[in-house]
Amino acid sequence: MRMSKGVEWAVHTLLNLAWVDHGRPVATAQLAAGHDLPGPYLHKQLQALVRAGLLESVPGARGGFLLARAPEAISMLDVVLAIEGDEPLFRCTEIRQCGLVGAECSGPDDFALPCAVKSALGRAETAWREALAAQSLADVGRATDEHAPNVGGAVRRALGSD
Amino acid sequence: MRMSKGVEWAVHTLLNLAWVDHGRPVATAQLAAGHDLPGPYLHKQLQALVRAGLLESVPGARGGFLLARAPEAISMLDVVLAIEGDEPLFRCTEIRQCGLVGAECSGPDDFALPCAVKSALGRAETAWREALAAQSLADVGRATDEHAPNVGGAVRRALGSD
Repeated sequence: MRMSKGVEWAVHTLLNLAWVDHGRPVATAQLAAGHDLPGPYLHKQLQALVRAGLLESVPGARGGFLLARAPEAISMLDVVLAIEGDEPLFRCTEIRQCGLVGAECSGPDDFALPCAVKSALGRAETAWREALAAQSLADVGRATDEHAPNVGGAVRRALGSD
Repeated sequence: MRMSKGVEWAVHTLLNLAWVDHGRPVATAQLAAGHDLPGPYLHKQLQALVRAGLLESVPGARGGFLLARAPEAISMLDVVLAIEGDEPLFRCTEIRQCGLVGAECSGPDDFALPCAVKSALGRAETAWREALAAQSLADVGRATDEHAPNVGGAVRRALGSD
């Protein structure tokens, strides 16, 4: 069980767009060159970010991608769900109701409430999502600026030219 | 990104062994019949639980599996790690150091500290792991007993006989 590489690519690309922030779209090829990523696969991730409302796509020869929201309004949860989808990590298939054990259960309340296994795993997943939701792209950018203040300038030099 | 079905199977099977708790091993075929699971694949999960020290395997004609620890000493994190392995959900591949952006970074501290993206995703993963670690097999069994008090008896009738 592991996130796709697309999450790392997406967060760094969003961060780069936040640093560049010159109001002009940046093309996929330029964004891909920023971290030596395969352009076509990065493009698929960028399209997923557009569908999730995190990026705006500008068509045309001078087109590309722009942040669709302020970095403060893009959470790590937004990015993970955009790339990975909104399926739960743990999916309960109600095996409690199957087989010999399920057949022996005859109380009216035996299956009335959610399975305690599902609830336990779900509580942990809620904690994960809340921690992702509590961290914005702006927070991550600020943390980088604090411990590596040259990086924002490096991104602007690498990606900010016409 | 999703957990394998094996996690649901493992937690329910461990719970069933906690309910039966008659000091005698229960065979894979009986455990599989408990929830109508495919025996060979369940057996692989049970072997993973043995390797993780959660189950004890007893060989022989009357052999099978027993809990290796008290239900209070088995956490949901123990089960998830036994089945899914101990890889992080988010694996940082240090793309920050690659490509045009990486080449433009020249400050001595640019890569001295962990990547802020890795740290942000890692904090959420820590929250998930802590929430899993805080819930024991005994807690999950107790929650089931509270809202569906017949289930423990049903498990003993289904799996507890010789």
